[in-house]
Amino acid sequence: MPDDQLLPSALLDRLGALLGPRGLLTDPADLEPHLADWRALYRGRTPCVVRPGSVEDLAAAVRLCAAAGAPLVPQGGNTSMVGGATPDEGGRQVVVSLARLNRVRDIDALDMTMTAEAGLVLKAAQDAAAGVGCLFPLSLGAEGTATIGGVLSTNAGGNTTVRYGNARDLMLGLEVVLPDGQVWNGLRRLRKDNTGYALRHLFVGAEGTLGFITAAVLRLFPRPRESEVAFCGVRDEDAALSLFRRFRDRDEGAVRAFEYMSGAGVGFYAKHIEGGSVPLPGHAHYVLVDLASSRPDAGLRALLEAVLEEAMEAGEVLDAAIGESEAQRAALWRIREEHPEAQKREGASVKNDVSVPVSRTPELIRRSSEACARLIPGIRPVPFGHLGDGNIHMNLEQPIGMDAAAFLARSHDIMDTVNDVVRDLGGSFSAEHGIGRLKTDMMADWRGGAELDLMQRIKRAVDPQGLMNPGKVLPG
Amino acid sequence: MPDDQLLPSALLDRLGALLGPRGLLTDPADLEPHLADWRALYRGRTPCVVRPGSVEDLAAAVRLCAAAGAPLVPQGGNTSMVGGATPDEGGRQVVVSLARLNRVRDIDALDMTMTAEAGLVLKAAQDAAAGVGCLFPLSLGAEGTATIGGVLSTNAGGNTTVRYGNARDLMLGLEVVLPDGQVWNGLRRLRKDNTGYALRHLFVGAEGTLGFITAAVLRLFPRPRESEVAFCGVRDEDAALSLFRRFRDRDEGAVRAFEYMSGAGVGFYAKHIEGGSVPLPGHAHYVLVDLASSRPDAGLRALLEAVLEEAMEAGEVLDAAIGESEAQRAALWRIREEHPEAQKREGASVKNDVSVPVSRTPELIRRSSEACARLIPGIRPVPFGHLGDGNIHMNLEQPIGMDAAAFLARSHDIMDTVNDVVRDLGGSFSAEHGIGRLKTDMMADWRGGAELDLMQRIKRAVDPQGLMNPGKVLPG
Repeated sequence: MPDDQLLPSALLDRLGALLGPRGLLTDPADLEPHLADWRALYRGRTPCVVRPGSVEDLAAAVRLCAAAGAPLVPQGGNTSMVGGATPDEGGRQVVVSLARLNRVRDIDALDMTMTAEAGLVLKAAQDAAAGVGCLFPLSLGAEGTATIGGVLSTNAGGNTTVRYGNARDLMLGLEVVLPDGQVWNGLRRLRKDNTGYALRHLFVGAEGTLGFITAAVLRLFPRPRESEVAFCGVRDEDAALSLFRRFRDRDEGAVRAFEYMSGAGVGFYAKHIEGGSVPLPGHAHYVLVDLASSRPDAGLRALLEAVLEEAMEAGEVLDAAIGESEAQRAALWRIREEHPEAQKREGASVKNDVSVPVSRTPELIRRSSEACARLIPGIRPVPFGHLGDGNIHMNLEQPIGMDAAAFLARSHDIMDTVNDVVRDLGGSFSAEHGIGRLKTDMMADWRGGAELDLMQRIKRAVDPQGLMNPGKVLPG
Repeated sequence: MPDDQLLPSALLDRLGALLGPRGLLTDPADLEPHLADWRALYRGRTPCVVRPGSVEDLAAAVRLCAAAGAPLVPQGGNTSMVGGATPDEGGRQVVVSLARLNRVRDIDALDMTMTAEAGLVLKAAQDAAAGVGCLFPLSLGAEGTATIGGVLSTNAGGNTTVRYGNARDLMLGLEVVLPDGQVWNGLRRLRKDNTGYALRHLFVGAEGTLGFITAAVLRLFPRPRESEVAFCGVRDEDAALSLFRRFRDRDEGAVRAFEYMSGAGVGFYAKHIEGGSVPLPGHAHYVLVDLASSRPDAGLRALLEAVLEEAMEAGEVLDAAIGESEAQRAALWRIREEHPEAQKREGASVKNDVSVPVSRTPELIRRSSEACARLIPGIRPVPFGHLGDGNIHMNLEQPIGMDAAAFLARSHDIMDTVNDVVRDLGGSFSAEHGIGRLKTDMMADWRGGAELDLMQRIKRAVDPQGLMNPGKVLPG
């Protein structure tokens, strides 16, 4: 039960005494970077930012806050796409930054595991793995800022899911500070362990609403010794899917990424990004395929050329550019990676992170593009993303000449239009970004009934006071 | 709340009216096969076996039982190694067989998914996948009897975990009948779907204590086009691990199975199994390595020979036999697969399904063998299993000439001795078999504190009446 005697000022004093000046920020300038989300959709307030330097300090701080009934908002790199890591406008929610818990506790190239703390930046985790000759494969746009705690709490996906799975699949064990301040040490580095409920899978993807992930045992992989990247103009969406299938059937283990891009998006890249030259301009549909293997003699180049030749003969691939060096491969990847920035420079856009069964991806792209064009004539669909996972960022750019604000005022109509198609195709309204605050209102409609009821029962069982990241994931 | 007015006979009448004679067994002869577990560790009683022919009938039967406060024991192929699927001796627990829910609802070689009902036998699922040119990779000794519902409820492992993961990793979505008779349809066939808590992962591995898995979306894979099997005499446990590492580093995607066997176990095979000839007798340690690839030109034979040659030069591999045909490869696998039977024919044995970090496997085998020999001089360690996962079946055969009953009376001492080593190495007391009834008493010691407390809170949240598979997994 909350202790009503403990006023916020008394709580702040206790937190200050516990954590010291490095561990508790109250100066408005220090709070500033923690108040708004990365997309600037929300701006909240907080009385303080707690920055514990150890798991024990975090646990003690959580106990103080639980006793005071103070709501807690876990924050990693604060790169959420759905407002998942920022406090609300009420001014009572305490932001808890995991940034100082950023050690690699151990790394073992024989076990192929790394125990990393929540605040470790994803890029630093990749580098640590590389330092022992291994690969930590999770890779996404925000990897220079996003943290291990964040990518696990949101079950991040990214570019390599088709080969290595989502963040969930890269995790063997967790350490969690529970909402009552108990520490659960589940840092087991076992490939098989069937001893009761899979609690670790409950915290992964819970977006901080059930507790604080403080550390994780992560799976490592052998480093690829060979890689190939091709950028292809393809006939249409079906041809893109067919090409994916050709590669997968030939060597499913070699497909590290398979990304779709529209002619519109590639055009925006050429127009807006410095040095943004495109090797094969003028196609309506593009695919980037990235092959990799840890075999020293994988023969990926021969495989790539053989599959592309087949697909050209079938009329699916119209033209292709193969990266001849690391620099060329990076340049091809840049076309895909700069899509969000290029789109931003072109004007206002509405983002939809949706997924469907892989086989339905062409239909998703076509039908939602058409439906949006009926809704707002002149709207410019810019679908791109992870075709190999069925996860397309079904983004829509404003019509040329339309007022940006007037376009954005139609955001919900556009999202509803896309989501109607997604639902009809058996898809999901949030593929890899999660629910956060942005999509909480959609949960009742999409996951209502027995499923949402179960989630709410679990929330109450794990966090009976309802203090963890209130207003996120579950509708109020 | 249970309806105290509804007596068991009234419940039986209602179940009979709902399910008809095919759906409700009450004849003692019909109940018989459902009362004892596969290892014959337990023998229980039940008033009836419910065998619903549809999910709707199951849900209605569960609602009747919930109203009557009747405990329910889900049963698939009844091949549990830990007494997980049989009723207790009290005579009140209703056995619910999923056997009639055994359809493949759909299968899609483009999406690489299959929606299978709980009662589908694992082998039939493998065959269905093969029928569309795909692979469902889960493979284990009981595959001719075990069912999809059972292997998911126990998160079964088996021989191919090193390449394809455990049952959990092969599942994209679930349909579950909850303890109150609600049906949750989570049969999504998506590779990415971050929309709230990962409920599906809570039911997988819950051993039927949270609800009935009635159907699942399973992941399929391209069928291997090439495979190679080698049976090797190796210098010692460390050499076995080193050989695993050599293969993994060379081509981690190609290692489909990597199994360790002791000289003792291989000797029992030669002695007891009809046609049980061993190509390389006389070694103290053996390894079976199985490579497979979906590439038509994977060159696995060259890879196999190159790695074995390196390992021979390093003194790790002493001799090796390579299967030259499908029949020879099957014969090599048979040495491993007949280990349980050979061990049984040699005399009484105590089984330990344990796991450690992969790097600690040699230490596990050595230290627990030594500790057991100190406990019972002459005891014969017969470790075998999935070295590539750190999952060794650390079995102990009775000393020659010792009375079997006297040996088995020491079972708990032997298990404790092995488990002390396992714990010291950061391992698990149940790797792939689960907890069932056999290991429930160990949960407080191994998973006590915050972890077990959380599990019990979740159990109460999902199954507040405590009707699902009572006495399994969680201590009472």
